[in-house]
Amino acid sequence: MRKRKTFVVEERVRLYDTDAEGVVHYAGYYRFFTDAIENFAYKFLGGYPIPNRNIIFVVVESTAKYHKPAFSGDKLKVEISPTMLSGKAIRFDFKIKKNLAIICDGHIVQVCISKRSWKAVQIPGNIRKVLGGW
Amino acid sequence: MRKRKTFVVEERVRLYDTDAEGVVHYAGYYRFFTDAIENFAYKFLGGYPIPNRNIIFVVVESTAKYHKPAFSGDKLKVEISPTMLSGKAIRFDFKIKKNLAIICDGHIVQVCISKRSWKAVQIPGNIRKVLGGW
Amino acid sequence: MRKRKTFVVEERVRLYDTDAEGVVHYAGYYRFFTDAIENFAYKFLGGYPIPNRNIIFVVVESTAKYHKPAFSGDKLKVEISPTMLSGKAIRFDFKIKKNLAIICDGHIVQVCISKRSWKAVQIPGNIRKVLGGW
Amino acid sequence: MRKRKTFVVEERVRLYDTDAEGVVHYAGYYRFFTDAIENFAYKFLGGYPIPNRNIIFVVVESTAKYHKPAFSGDKLKVEISPTMLSGKAIRFDFKIKKNLAIICDGHIVQVCISKRSWKAVQIPGNIRKVLGGW
Repeated sequence: MRKRKTFVVEERVRLYDTDAEGVVHYAGYYRFFTDAIENFAYKFLGGYPIPNRNIIFVVVESTAKYHKPAFSGDKLKVEISPTMLSGKAIRFDFKIKKNLAIICDGHIVQVCISKRSWKAVQIPGNIRKVLGGW
Repeated sequence: MRKRKTFVVEERVRLYDTDAEGVVHYAGYYRFFTDAIENFAYKFLGGYPIPNRNIIFVVVESTAKYHKPAFSGDKLKVEISPTMLSGKAIRFDFKIKKNLAIICDGHIVQVCISKRSWKAVQIPGNIRKVLGGW
Repeated sequence: MRKRKTFVVEERVRLYDTDAEGVVHYAGYYRFFTDAIENFAYKFLGGYPIPNRNIIFVVVESTAKYHKPAFSGDKLKVEISPTMLSGKAIRFDFKIKKNLAIICDGHIVQVCISKRSWKAVQIPGNIRKVLGGW
Repeated sequence: MRKRKTFVVEERVRLYDTDAEGVVHYAGYYRFFTDAIENFAYKFLGGYPIPNRNIIFVVVESTAKYHKPAFSGDKLKVEISPTMLSGKAIRFDFKIKKNLAIICDGHIVQVCISKRSWKAVQIPGNIRKVLGGW
């Protein structure tokens, strides 16, 4: 099986990512997931949201599993791997690493919809081409 | 001098309002200010944002002073007092109380702008009338 | 099969829950999940975090599926159903409704850990008793 | 008069910084202020929060003025200038620039307090020395 490519984004845990229990609040990890998708899109897809007058991508599913805590100041590496689920949907898988340990993993599914009809439509060819290479 | 009227909104400090120092993060108080403005607008101004096709209100200034800490679970009372600064701008003053002590105060200024020109315009008469009574 | 009990929390979508696409940002729904857990705990478990010097509950898993968009000002009903997964873990299931439609559902799993060892331990009897009744 | 030194942090406006009015939510600018303080502290003060067992810095005042809107994807430059207000307090001034225009400015005051007494105390000499050079 072909090894999937990944794109890595570095993050620093901010004080505002943590809560009074002393560690990153569970929902805070979605900021890291989001930053990774946005950085991926700025680098490979021309911008975020995708610069296209007719379509937008909407999140239809998000999950995260939390294995170890992270603290204010920690340096994290967020690995993102995109996969085409169909001609209309993309899945992004994430692994968040602190040193060598995976402290959190999860995924987000985005569906391409028409701005006019608000219904799922085909992902434009230029984006499918980029994602097909991953 | 006429005593200004106030409208009071109750808040509960959420774990996500706090950070790893154990108390509410300074920027978290703006959530309480915002909730108070929104609740005021839902009650007295017909909605938030103001339901008007031609104008929106934009924040041009915000300040807060922090006197005492607040902790997860604390029950707070947020007092909001609106004032017309001109025909185009509203100032909202806030006092956040925990028991009888003021733990934070501050203000927000919003200006009425035209959605088309993005320039300051007169606040609609029905809103000026409501705010004139405060 | 016994129908599970639910506890319902009302929310108002705030402007800050939305993003420039005009609808609630996907991660914003976790605020509604969190508020529901906290309100449940304030009402039935004596506080949040659980007031116990020896243990805390940590989130080990979160998921959400998004079915329909929500807009600033929308009134939502968040239904929360707790289940004991084991003597050490609780699962909270959520359904978020706008009018009669389910616009989002998901779940969160929390594990009871010792503050000293940071390892999973038995949930205290008084909490198990409350949750056993759901 | 000696020109004050500044430290510059680059930010990208994220979709989650914006709201349904299409621009950055007013409170979102405090994220940029905070990131600038944290980056300054990581670079010049050994970490954030300051790594010292006896003291913490607490925010006692924050202000922002908003001059022009910012949109998802905008690249911003955040200029931060620290000043010693006294032996116990630091003021950070901010200017946020988009291209050459200042779109937001403001400041934050932090006071050094003892973790034990929760009272204002002298800022440690090594920090005063770094800040004295600005």
